[in-house]
Amino acid sequence: MGLVGHYSFQMQPQDGDFTEHVYASSLGDYILQAAGKNADDNGFGVRELNRENYTWVLIRMAVEIIRIPTMYERISIKTWIESIRAATTTRNFAVFDEQDRVIAYSGTNWAMIDLNTRKPVDLGKLPTLTHYISGNTIPIEGVAKLPSIESAPVATRKVQYSDIDFNKHVNSMKYLQWVLNEYSIDWYNHHAIQRFDINFLHEAMYGDPISIHQQRNGLTDLFEMKRQDESLCKVQIQWVNH
Amino acid sequence: MGLVGHYSFQMQPQDGDFTEHVYASSLGDYILQAAGKNADDNGFGVRELNRENYTWVLIRMAVEIIRIPTMYERISIKTWIESIRAATTTRNFAVFDEQDRVIAYSGTNWAMIDLNTRKPVDLGKLPTLTHYISGNTIPIEGVAKLPSIESAPVATRKVQYSDIDFNKHVNSMKYLQWVLNEYSIDWYNHHAIQRFDINFLHEAMYGDPISIHQQRNGLTDLFEMKRQDESLCKVQIQWVNH
Repeated sequence: MGLVGHYSFQMQPQDGDFTEHVYASSLGDYILQAAGKNADDNGFGVRELNRENYTWVLIRMAVEIIRIPTMYERISIKTWIESIRAATTTRNFAVFDEQDRVIAYSGTNWAMIDLNTRKPVDLGKLPTLTHYISGNTIPIEGVAKLPSIESAPVATRKVQYSDIDFNKHVNSMKYLQWVLNEYSIDWYNHHAIQRFDINFLHEAMYGDPISIHQQRNGLTDLFEMKRQDESLCKVQIQWVNH
Repeated sequence: MGLVGHYSFQMQPQDGDFTEHVYASSLGDYILQAAGKNADDNGFGVRELNRENYTWVLIRMAVEIIRIPTMYERISIKTWIESIRAATTTRNFAVFDEQDRVIAYSGTNWAMIDLNTRKPVDLGKLPTLTHYISGNTIPIEGVAKLPSIESAPVATRKVQYSDIDFNKHVNSMKYLQWVLNEYSIDWYNHHAIQRFDINFLHEAMYGDPISIHQQRNGLTDLFEMKRQDESLCKVQIQWVNH
């Protein structure tokens, strides 16, 4: 395998929102699928890591959207590892349409955790990873480190069966789906997402009570999801009028 | 094209629940995707119908599960039209694993509606449909016509952005996801779905307040979703211990 993986996907009907564009959370899912496939292809996928009692966890993610795909559209995603530090690795993505035009970029940071302690493990334990460092960057700002919000919650919810994945915690893209549900149909008729940043801080488990906090600054919204006073996840969304 | 369409799918990480088996609603999604692809292949898909200002709506669905697939598993789905009546058509499905063993059957009833009036249209308006009647049945009971429930709701919710699809109404499989969220992790650790039946009665729209009613009879649960007194959707789930 080369340093860059390249994977194709077709957008499905259930990926489309009422405007027939795909949900930003679905685009995020395809990006994470590409990451999973590339890690598998290179010998350090989740199933491989599970044998050593490790797993990958997503720490931060940024997606900058030039054009959001529509239902049935075919896209392809190129992905590669930019760099590795002691505890985290940076993986980048470029999303292409069928005419090979870039329609989105994404930057992600990952840590490897021990399945028993749920604590990060030194990435030196995966020596093959170093063979795949490309050094190649993407032309967007790195993932933002988002601040906390002190104001009262705008919504509360409990973690449900459909929220949790094979890692037995809330699936990364569900946090984004939760905050996108805070906007009205009318909002979606007049705004599109230009960029979103997510910081994953603590895992939320089945039944956990979640409060959702929001802070608006022009067309940028910051959200924080908490379990009591503990910050679980922060999401920043930059909108554009259309 | 022959009378039977045959489509392959790989189960994705986000299709898997915490047990690494796919959500019943995800299996249902793949079955509906196969229906969509086959209608497209035969010239009467949704996009074709939209040109005449019509669309397909799912009226009833039954799925009998012999073995629920796991994450990453590849399945294939055969689908064909069994019969056509004036206002509805019956489409059947057989789901296979990679060893060509049947792991599920599904029977569905569909109507074609006018996009302006939202009322059913005579299927005689689609003359090509009659070329695809196979007459072939599947070895499960037909879709149940489910009764109403008079008791108080067990849950209430509002229709959210992530619930509605390109038809601008609640996506068929979301009703199933809602009722599956009424069960605990402990329940899923000890029970599996043997069969589900769904009756779709009225469309729910963005912002609609929904009440969920439940009635248990042994390992069979009946659910009804209502908007005030209007019945929108009924779901019956037959569980088995494992």
